[in-house]
Amino acid sequence: MKARVTITLKPGVLDPQGKAIEGALTSLGFSGVNQARQGKVIDLDLAATDESAAREEVGRMCEALLANTVVERYDIAILS
Amino acid sequence: MKARVTITLKPGVLDPQGKAIEGALTSLGFSGVNQARQGKVIDLDLAATDESAAREEVGRMCEALLANTVVERYDIAILS
Repeated sequence: MKARVTITLKPGVLDPQGKAIEGALTSLGFSGVNQARQGKVIDLDLAATDESAAREEVGRMCEALLANTVVERYDIAILS
Repeated sequence: MKARVTITLKPGVLDPQGKAIEGALTSLGFSGVNQARQGKVIDLDLAATDESAAREEVGRMCEALLANTVVERYDIAILS
């Protein structure tokens, strides 16, 4: 079973990487960028065959390792 | 208008970050992880109001800066 975890910074948390992207895009001549924020996407290939079991396991992975839940939030999509 | 760019490594490209995640998850006791691959997600807040113009501009941003098209592929989703 495949799952995709999308991890993004919580609103209000400063995103220096995003600021760097904004600056670089502007200097490259892209004037229409109001804001850029960068996050992570982790694609997991799981042995689980049951969707709810897979979602629950991935949730525990996020809490234990993949996301810093103080400043990040995560979204789990079970793909197949 | 908001857009989300998801940048992932092309198949076959070695992903040391993904390997590190696999190892860490296994050492934390998650045995059901066959593979993990990490990518980036960039959320853009654009001044553009037309969807096709926004998609075309973001495509140019990806080619110019956001993605290393030698080893990465990108997917553009126009959210609103």
